[in-house]
Amino acid sequence: MTVLLATDASAEENHTWLRALSQALPGERFVTSRNAAVDPEIDVAMVANPASGSLAGLPSLRLIQSLWAGVNGLLNDASVPADVPLARMVDPAMADAMAQTALWAVLSLHRGFYTCARDQREHRWGMHEQRRADEVGVTVLGLGQMGSRVARSLVREGYRVAGWSQRARSIDSVHCHVGAAALPSLLAQTQILINLLPLTPATVGLIDMHTLAALPRGASLVNLARGAHVVEADLLAALDSGHLEHAVLDVFAIEPLPVEHAFWDHARVTVLPHFAAQTDPRSAAQVAAANVRALREGRALAHLVDRQRGY
Amino acid sequence: MTVLLATDASAEENHTWLRALSQALPGERFVTSRNAAVDPEIDVAMVANPASGSLAGLPSLRLIQSLWAGVNGLLNDASVPADVPLARMVDPAMADAMAQTALWAVLSLHRGFYTCARDQREHRWGMHEQRRADEVGVTVLGLGQMGSRVARSLVREGYRVAGWSQRARSIDSVHCHVGAAALPSLLAQTQILINLLPLTPATVGLIDMHTLAALPRGASLVNLARGAHVVEADLLAALDSGHLEHAVLDVFAIEPLPVEHAFWDHARVTVLPHFAAQTDPRSAAQVAAANVRALREGRALAHLVDRQRGY
Repeated sequence: MTVLLATDASAEENHTWLRALSQALPGERFVTSRNAAVDPEIDVAMVANPASGSLAGLPSLRLIQSLWAGVNGLLNDASVPADVPLARMVDPAMADAMAQTALWAVLSLHRGFYTCARDQREHRWGMHEQRRADEVGVTVLGLGQMGSRVARSLVREGYRVAGWSQRARSIDSVHCHVGAAALPSLLAQTQILINLLPLTPATVGLIDMHTLAALPRGASLVNLARGAHVVEADLLAALDSGHLEHAVLDVFAIEPLPVEHAFWDHARVTVLPHFAAQTDPRSAAQVAAANVRALREGRALAHLVDRQRGY
Repeated sequence: MTVLLATDASAEENHTWLRALSQALPGERFVTSRNAAVDPEIDVAMVANPASGSLAGLPSLRLIQSLWAGVNGLLNDASVPADVPLARMVDPAMADAMAQTALWAVLSLHRGFYTCARDQREHRWGMHEQRRADEVGVTVLGLGQMGSRVARSLVREGYRVAGWSQRARSIDSVHCHVGAAALPSLLAQTQILINLLPLTPATVGLIDMHTLAALPRGASLVNLARGAHVVEADLLAALDSGHLEHAVLDVFAIEPLPVEHAFWDHARVTVLPHFAAQTDPRSAAQVAAANVRALREGRALAHLVDRQRGY
């Protein structure tokens, strides 16, 4: 049997993946394109933003292993066979990278480093209030693998951390809240809001004018999940009115962010090029390989997506 | 007896100090200026960058308690009586703030966030390599209260941390090196160099062309100690030649940094306004009060400066 690697990555990146995967699965045959319209040899597809149609007409396909954490693109592609088990990537190096990005954004906001950068451009030696970490309320939306890792990292640095999720969670020293009704009062106590929700029909557009208005004046937003969580026009209005202090955005409705977009030159927006957390082929190949071995040996697959729930 | 508070702070900041100190030492009398050329009532002076001469002619003075961590200004002022015990401020909140600033700078350098900020100004959706924290070698110069706190915080985030100090130190998971001879080979393995040394005759100008040349190409400097540790012309030359990737500078030869200084507009320099770690009056007043009580009760004073050593 054969493993298909279907990505939109460069040849160099695919080469890195193939090397890591071949080392992790020495007995497997890998291909990066299909030999025929109907290829009965392929039983596993490893995918990262595959072209639509790449996974159609594979009669032996038994596992789709995403190399990305987010699978909303795959779920929205009708050509992806809906009856084949789909696994998300749960890569510890990616969770580490996400925690680093979140910590960097929180430190920057808490300690006024974005303000410093504006001051530097104006040659201004500005003074800034210094608060302790335990005086800053940070709320993490989404307490899955990424969100819970981020919340724990912020607790360790002394922040006052709350979390919000669809299902009840328990994380040491994190005030965990559940469900839509709990959100408004939680937002009212939040200085820094970090979005790490999965993108599902229930969370699209969640961060809109109402959510932003529920934050206290001077709060900030850090979006590390998906662009479609945020209503960009509402975010711009909240920044321009002065209600919101700053936004750190790694993801956007359209990526790459169009060159004419208002976010680029906005003094209160930090634009990151969707790189908060990238999959690390060295560790992710091990995770993907473990699932392929489980498939071959008839054991349970890990990190399977619940297509109804959407993640 | 009376406690003199001598600072260059604003009236509002002095008011905050007086309130915190009065609460911590309810039985004491505080003054912010001397009533006479020779004031025999004053036996304790609490100081933060006091005007030269403020501490001269106080016949009963028995303790000078700095409200700052660095005491090089006091040691260089000949009007400060050399036979009165001088204590540094060792404020846990200040060490926390220093660790936050160092972590922010290291995360920014490691993950390419300063490059992102340059890309944003040019509306460029740039791609960046993602390394793991354990692939980044960070060296902390100075392993006193600040340096050791910073080193421990970086270890916790997974960085490969080395330390360098005058006297032998031992910190869990930190490769500690001692003395001038050990420095060149240590620098050769350093991607990020953090300066937290005390300013003494032995450390003035330590970070010069030779030290910078010993770093590998692409390394970065984070100076959180004193401006006089760095030969600014040598630093600019190392940045302009491309040998050094970036410098994060909180302290300068002249502060505030003059508006015409080349650092302000340098694309590879981040200027901070000497605010990496400020004393927090709430916790520092407790530390200062404990020393005043020790003095009154004849117990040993804490955090005394060795004037020969210079810190």
